[in-house]
Amino acid sequence: MKRRHAIGLGAAGIAGAGAGFAASRLLPEPSAQAADPAAEAIEFYGEHQAGIVTPAQDRLHFAAFDVITSDRDELIDPHTAAPPPPPRRGGAHFAGPGGASGGDYYAPPDDTGEAQGLPPSGLTLTFGVGPGLFTDADGADRFGLAAKRPEALADLPGFPLDDLDPAISGGDLCIQACANDPQIAVHAVRNLARIGFGTVAIRWSQLGFGRTSSTSLAQATPRNLMGFKDGTANLKAEDEDLLAEHLWAPEGDGAAWMTGGSYMVTRRIRMMIETWDRTSLAEQEAIIGRDKAEGAPLSGGGEFDEPDFDAVHDGAPAIAVNAHIKLAHPTSHGGARMLRRGYSFVDGSDELGRLDAGLFFIAYQRDPATGFVPVQQALAQNDVLNEYIKHTSSAVFACPPGVADADDWWGRALFE
Amino acid sequence: MKRRHAIGLGAAGIAGAGAGFAASRLLPEPSAQAADPAAEAIEFYGEHQAGIVTPAQDRLHFAAFDVITSDRDELIDPHTAAPPPPPRRGGAHFAGPGGASGGDYYAPPDDTGEAQGLPPSGLTLTFGVGPGLFTDADGADRFGLAAKRPEALADLPGFPLDDLDPAISGGDLCIQACANDPQIAVHAVRNLARIGFGTVAIRWSQLGFGRTSSTSLAQATPRNLMGFKDGTANLKAEDEDLLAEHLWAPEGDGAAWMTGGSYMVTRRIRMMIETWDRTSLAEQEAIIGRDKAEGAPLSGGGEFDEPDFDAVHDGAPAIAVNAHIKLAHPTSHGGARMLRRGYSFVDGSDELGRLDAGLFFIAYQRDPATGFVPVQQALAQNDVLNEYIKHTSSAVFACPPGVADADDWWGRALFE
Repeated sequence: MKRRHAIGLGAAGIAGAGAGFAASRLLPEPSAQAADPAAEAIEFYGEHQAGIVTPAQDRLHFAAFDVITSDRDELIDPHTAAPPPPPRRGGAHFAGPGGASGGDYYAPPDDTGEAQGLPPSGLTLTFGVGPGLFTDADGADRFGLAAKRPEALADLPGFPLDDLDPAISGGDLCIQACANDPQIAVHAVRNLARIGFGTVAIRWSQLGFGRTSSTSLAQATPRNLMGFKDGTANLKAEDEDLLAEHLWAPEGDGAAWMTGGSYMVTRRIRMMIETWDRTSLAEQEAIIGRDKAEGAPLSGGGEFDEPDFDAVHDGAPAIAVNAHIKLAHPTSHGGARMLRRGYSFVDGSDELGRLDAGLFFIAYQRDPATGFVPVQQALAQNDVLNEYIKHTSSAVFACPPGVADADDWWGRALFE
Repeated sequence: MKRRHAIGLGAAGIAGAGAGFAASRLLPEPSAQAADPAAEAIEFYGEHQAGIVTPAQDRLHFAAFDVITSDRDELIDPHTAAPPPPPRRGGAHFAGPGGASGGDYYAPPDDTGEAQGLPPSGLTLTFGVGPGLFTDADGADRFGLAAKRPEALADLPGFPLDDLDPAISGGDLCIQACANDPQIAVHAVRNLARIGFGTVAIRWSQLGFGRTSSTSLAQATPRNLMGFKDGTANLKAEDEDLLAEHLWAPEGDGAAWMTGGSYMVTRRIRMMIETWDRTSLAEQEAIIGRDKAEGAPLSGGGEFDEPDFDAVHDGAPAIAVNAHIKLAHPTSHGGARMLRRGYSFVDGSDELGRLDAGLFFIAYQRDPATGFVPVQQALAQNDVLNEYIKHTSSAVFACPPGVADADDWWGRALFE
């Protein structure tokens, strides 16, 4: 099988395949049958990667990869090699002996096929590189990239109560595949892993079935598995000044190849669902600091009104000093903000019959040291919610800026 | 918390709550915002249970339960106890001190809340009882039901190549929750498990993200994770004569309480995706016996044309004698047919970085001894597909007929 890698993941196979990802070899063209929002195709090229401020799709397949080659050329192949093939569409993917177009009947099909006939479903692929791509566990400069490692791509510190499983943490590369149809997201990760066979290997992956944040004012606030609205105060695509201040890595930030990119933190947060469900509504609302029905802060008003942390109710603070929204609020952390883009997950049941369920937290920011880290330090120390949650996986990635056009590719500025 | 069990699962809380499940306490009323097919509400009451011939929804949460009480009254409570409360709707679920309707603010909320505001999404709940409800592992008659165990509810025999994990096999009861939104399916299983707390406990559960069968002529044939169309020759809702012959348990079949019910077999079939993806298109098509693009049998014609097992191509059978569609075809098994209703699953990745993915097979039939069992015996012995799949879980359940009205409940005829 002819390799068409790009940083081990066939990015050129995607980016070079036509005008935007929907026209690429991984996705069929929108079906004539599709008459629903699933038919939406998201532009792949741009200043920033898609899948960050793109209105959060409903489904996630997130995959972290280990790079298993020690050969830099193999890692960035095929940018120095042959150009990618033209996109194949519709039935031509599978054209057999009698088919109208190429494809070797006695070779594995170019595409695994399970998404054949499905609409693009708003698919976005967001690519990131982890600390391990720069230096290995022994501190060796694996690919001559160590000097380019951004300061903001620091390993996350340990937090109190962390219960991390190393087997589902970290990773040299990652792909966040979001779509409104899980078959489309799964298909993308599967085929990228397949194209990267021999160069990269999936380290861990996580499916998410329901978005827990809005990233656009046009979206309603979803509920997480605790039953509360989540992400009310999230950064939104429309807040361009705030995005420039808190989300995108600016010029002169030390790592020129990351200008216009963003840093992603992921945490798999298991919820002790059954215990939470036996807690009174009063306690649930006190822990969160919002009412469950509408999502309004307990200081009053509606969902989108600012919480008033000075408000008093029956002689006590209306919002407890250790309420989740108080501990996580920007005013508690020098104004730092993140763009959250997490998903609910249910990975079946554990050996005690409890749902293995929770929140796969994803947050983007200009620098985790001023974004995620101080917030998580405060939460890990004081949040009563800790009785009902457990962080089981952690990772951090630098997501480079967008791919400009068909001659560009994911992370090119890092390697050139 | 007041218990409202019905066979340990709160069925009366569902069935008695109003005109159909969509009006019940587990589901909010369709939201005014919902303008998509997800808004569909499926009738709960009827001759047969919903979720069998109902056009297959896109998402699954399947849960198998152990009964952990030895008290028959507790198992079937509350049919002898208080009637269920009236359904609560909309924000009233969470009404706090200032709320318009009941609900104890200092008690756990009646509903876990994560589906609040979501449309019904075509939810169906299908209920079944396993062999273990009748006799325990030592052969003891647990609840005085042993004499009512149908012959068709036999334990499945072992098959060659079975690689079953007992921890995710079997179960005394099951719920198949299907919906077009996974949050709705998960919500239903979670709340049933919660209502049954202390009486039943989840033994194992499985999420499925994409249907792999059509159960109606109105549905397009989906593709499974091998990339092939699946279920082309499935029984369909419109084949009423065939359903009477092959699907529904008839009167006089030995277990009167099952008349109008059906027997469900589940198998978690892990696919060795990465190995399959390295197989040539020619070999994939030969193994299945259909072409990958259109799903037409290799003997020619279109997807829905009958395969011609006598057709010859280049001196050899066009469809190999051990092709999957030949081995599974009704003509190879005295005409036996099943209604398949399976789902694709991806449960992340295994320790080798391979996708832990495949097909959660669900089939309904009048009697597994003439339906699933002979077909699986033939497949386990001769199917070349076995090089690419592994059965890791197995279960069988008797699914009683439908709930007639608000005074009826799941499995009543079994207990009365």
